[in-house]
Amino acid sequence: METLYVKVPGTVDTSYPIEIGAGLLGSVWAGLDERFAGRGRFVVTDANVAAAGLLDELLAGTEVPCYTIEPPGEVSKNVDTAVGIVEAMEKACLGRDTLVVALGGGTVGDIAGFAAAIFKRGVPVVQVPTTTLAQADSAIGGKTGVDSSVSKNAFGAFWHPAVVYIDVATLKTLDERQYRAGLVESVKHAVIADAEYFDFLERRLDDILGRKLEVLEAIAGYNCRIKGSVVEADPHERNKRRILNYGHTIGHAVESASSYDLLHGEAVAVGMAAAGLIEAEMGLAEPARLQRVQGVLERLGVPVRLPDSIAQEKVLDLLQHDKKAVGKWPRFVLTDRLGHAYCENGQYAVDVHREIVEKVLKKLR
Amino acid sequence: METLYVKVPGTVDTSYPIEIGAGLLGSVWAGLDERFAGRGRFVVTDANVAAAGLLDELLAGTEVPCYTIEPPGEVSKNVDTAVGIVEAMEKACLGRDTLVVALGGGTVGDIAGFAAAIFKRGVPVVQVPTTTLAQADSAIGGKTGVDSSVSKNAFGAFWHPAVVYIDVATLKTLDERQYRAGLVESVKHAVIADAEYFDFLERRLDDILGRKLEVLEAIAGYNCRIKGSVVEADPHERNKRRILNYGHTIGHAVESASSYDLLHGEAVAVGMAAAGLIEAEMGLAEPARLQRVQGVLERLGVPVRLPDSIAQEKVLDLLQHDKKAVGKWPRFVLTDRLGHAYCENGQYAVDVHREIVEKVLKKLR
Repeated sequence: METLYVKVPGTVDTSYPIEIGAGLLGSVWAGLDERFAGRGRFVVTDANVAAAGLLDELLAGTEVPCYTIEPPGEVSKNVDTAVGIVEAMEKACLGRDTLVVALGGGTVGDIAGFAAAIFKRGVPVVQVPTTTLAQADSAIGGKTGVDSSVSKNAFGAFWHPAVVYIDVATLKTLDERQYRAGLVESVKHAVIADAEYFDFLERRLDDILGRKLEVLEAIAGYNCRIKGSVVEADPHERNKRRILNYGHTIGHAVESASSYDLLHGEAVAVGMAAAGLIEAEMGLAEPARLQRVQGVLERLGVPVRLPDSIAQEKVLDLLQHDKKAVGKWPRFVLTDRLGHAYCENGQYAVDVHREIVEKVLKKLR
Repeated sequence: METLYVKVPGTVDTSYPIEIGAGLLGSVWAGLDERFAGRGRFVVTDANVAAAGLLDELLAGTEVPCYTIEPPGEVSKNVDTAVGIVEAMEKACLGRDTLVVALGGGTVGDIAGFAAAIFKRGVPVVQVPTTTLAQADSAIGGKTGVDSSVSKNAFGAFWHPAVVYIDVATLKTLDERQYRAGLVESVKHAVIADAEYFDFLERRLDDILGRKLEVLEAIAGYNCRIKGSVVEADPHERNKRRILNYGHTIGHAVESASSYDLLHGEAVAVGMAAAGLIEAEMGLAEPARLQRVQGVLERLGVPVRLPDSIAQEKVLDLLQHDKKAVGKWPRFVLTDRLGHAYCENGQYAVDVHREIVEKVLKKLR
């Protein structure tokens, strides 16, 4: 008997740039020429983004093979779509020197990022997020994934983007409901990591809702700095990165229980309201914090109560099947003051008794 | 306009162990208890391996969820099988703390490794190869992948095993043809990297064909040291790792042109014979080298000529669509002396004129 060892060489620190601006979409193609000369390109987008004219603005008259996800949205975020993208890339005779460009919202970025991760053992992806959700959250951090028939993100890979281009002017194309729901992730960032950012959101909310470009650039900067620093500290979500799941444990269950009638951000808003009530139950509340957070969410016009159509038992059952703790009662991310995630014994995902969650769900009506 | 940077932290050097022995299969489970206490397990195997009794020997009476690939072999190495494995893991309520154990040949290892890479953004895989091919080659090095309807390994990931257990006694269960074809990768290792190993193979071939365990342990050691050192030097196949593709450029085309009637190792044997003829055409031959290599391959009983059923034009057409150089004429790996890969201007994949390949294919009849 013999034991040999194969070394897996480590990697050096790298970084990827996030360009933030208003109206930069038309110059992305030229930027890629500089950064990735000689690479073939393949664009993944969806029917809504194309219809809004953003694909034409990106391509600026060039001919590039594209895959348009149809229908747009969560319903297409499955492994069949990812397989379809890979096969379309093959049919376009693309090889390992290809660059995948994801133009669209969170769904497009997640699917395209995953397809890039698994195409011929991985090719780089450029994220060009065009929604409040994707610009604040999903385009940064390297999480990609698609759903199976059984659960969300059953398939996935950590696949960091090569570069991210955030054009806040693209947000003008969003419908009001999607625009507002996506801003919930910005509120989440402020609540878990930056009280000053929360003050800014509270103060400038009318300008944000009016889609004033300079304030949108400012919040993009806040979001990327917060999310970037959390991801840097814990890229594979061993502990600290879990704080980004604030409001998401109950949020995912509510989203699923609504059969995805609720948008992701809307469900997370309910989850954040629930987290606030859990904090109060557990003695982590500060005076007025819950009211301030709920106040901002209400001004966004997103729900902060459990809709009547969703049974509490359904939510509890889905929590029991949470993907982060299959078969066990999940842990929760909480805050102990505005802009500060609660840490217990060095862990950011903490135990909350099922009885407390049941009580909170009753209060959420 | 603002540019931010998100750091992607580097990783430290790690290594994974390869345990080599005769009859160690029955103690793998206990070894995993020590190495990965508390992790759920999921076994991927195929119908042949299970029928040979190896699954029972591995499980040693324990109850573990399994996925049995059916039918065994290349025909199942596709994305549908990988999706089926992931969904079976979900249905078994397995989470991110799961260990995937791949028990079988190259196909099982490739599929199971890929499924582990994409299950909930990646869980560790343990490779337990049971064929001459997998023990020499595919279980080591972290390449995983499955085919699409368009081409081989269209889907894939680099996903290093957490540990590899090589029980050479499992080779006794292989049918003669598969056993012999898999040994071609061992001959390839000797030809590209170790003339002394080639002498050993030549000298001990009768014992190898007689499946004498101590000589099988010895060649497993040679193979793992050679493949391990090449992979360490170039894990992502930027240059040096390409030498492992010796005989594979034409080999893959021949394998595909035969509609997979030829086993992988058999097609690679034809490819190695072709490489030898190309070397002669290009003035890289040594006296008697081609004869010695062909001699060993002939004693293995694998083909060293292009079967009559395969048209040269078909092979040339497939070469034009080689996945490593889509749309371009591929580069080839050659040797300039026994045990030594040819390097031209620092590159191990070198230009060979199409005319030379055409001439060699004619000579291969």
